[in-house]
Amino acid sequence: MKQGIFYAVGVGAGDPMDMTLRAKAVLEQADIIVTPIPKAGGTSAAYAIAAQAADLSHAERLDILFPMQAHNDYRERLRSGVLQPVCAALDSGRQVAMVTLGDVSVYSTASYVRQLLAEKGYATQVIAGVPSFCAGAAKAQQSLCENSESLQILPAVHSREAVETALEQFDNLVVMKAGRAMAWLLPLLRERGLLEHTTMLRDVGMPSEYIGKPELEPYSYFTTLLIKGGDL
Amino acid sequence: MKQGIFYAVGVGAGDPMDMTLRAKAVLEQADIIVTPIPKAGGTSAAYAIAAQAADLSHAERLDILFPMQAHNDYRERLRSGVLQPVCAALDSGRQVAMVTLGDVSVYSTASYVRQLLAEKGYATQVIAGVPSFCAGAAKAQQSLCENSESLQILPAVHSREAVETALEQFDNLVVMKAGRAMAWLLPLLRERGLLEHTTMLRDVGMPSEYIGKPELEPYSYFTTLLIKGGDL
Repeated sequence: MKQGIFYAVGVGAGDPMDMTLRAKAVLEQADIIVTPIPKAGGTSAAYAIAAQAADLSHAERLDILFPMQAHNDYRERLRSGVLQPVCAALDSGRQVAMVTLGDVSVYSTASYVRQLLAEKGYATQVIAGVPSFCAGAAKAQQSLCENSESLQILPAVHSREAVETALEQFDNLVVMKAGRAMAWLLPLLRERGLLEHTTMLRDVGMPSEYIGKPELEPYSYFTTLLIKGGDL
Repeated sequence: MKQGIFYAVGVGAGDPMDMTLRAKAVLEQADIIVTPIPKAGGTSAAYAIAAQAADLSHAERLDILFPMQAHNDYRERLRSGVLQPVCAALDSGRQVAMVTLGDVSVYSTASYVRQLLAEKGYATQVIAGVPSFCAGAAKAQQSLCENSESLQILPAVHSREAVETALEQFDNLVVMKAGRAMAWLLPLLRERGLLEHTTMLRDVGMPSEYIGKPELEPYSYFTTLLIKGGDL
């Protein structure tokens, strides 16, 4: 029997026009769109973005709950059977595409889903997307790395020590998921004279977008700091 | 007088379908496409990719020579007057788009061009693209970073010490422009037991594409290594 293919699709960082031609093509031919939602009855930011650039009207939508909580073991959750409807769809030969913000290979739940399905023997493909730090750097018209400079990407969630270590010696540093960490990140950057070398990106591509000097409020999960050290 | 806008456009890492919807739209409305070429009479990989996905037939093409040599000071070269035709076009109100492989913010010459034009007072915009390491990770169906892992991106050109330092302590490491460095990179990875955790990406999206275990030959400028340390 013909088996379906699971596509993990990066839709870019907030702006529908940042979607790739392949992401649009794959989503428009999919039978089922899997959308990660943060709470029951909630909406998927990734789906909303995709729906603005691609015609998703013919596809069935399948929500899967992924609470945005630190220390949440998504792999464990996925093994609990939440993927059963996805497996059933693939078994019946249907094409299933899961949307994810940014790029699939950068902190994405779709990456775990794909891996578990591949382990079960399903055919999978990954459709790359523009990661949020690239989308943000474009909007801020800044380079992330030049010449022989390095680029380090760190999530601020439960890793203050890692951020402090990175600030000891770096060329360019991107701190992702910085929202809740701003309370200690801001004083740290001020102390090290790095505030004027830092650009804050919040909700890139969304109506609440902010690009500019770092500030504490309002809180957003999608907060990224670009810190330039190359010229220091 | 109306002045044109300069767009630095990332076209993705080799596959035309990796271009974003905005890159296609901007290139199709541009009056002039600036293409970086590695030698006189040479071709531009970025232009070839863009031309497969976007209709560029109405745009004038303007080649600018950027020799791919280490220690080449592109900024100095750009200040020498090579941008004069671009400035003239912008002064006459024409829209100018420069194509670049991957993303504009990641080791791109277009980023220097944009910066110099902005310094001269021209309006500029950056159109983000899928960087080569994301395109490669997608093809290899690997994640670059998960959970609280960090990601470090390093160019191998003239920075063996930096690579060795990074290998001392890392979660995930991407070594770009690794082609000529493979002669010392391969023994180094073997010595540290990292060969089996390394995926080599060469000419991603091009006919000569290779994704698999690291190997020495043939040499390509577009060689990237993905090294996973998170599970070690």
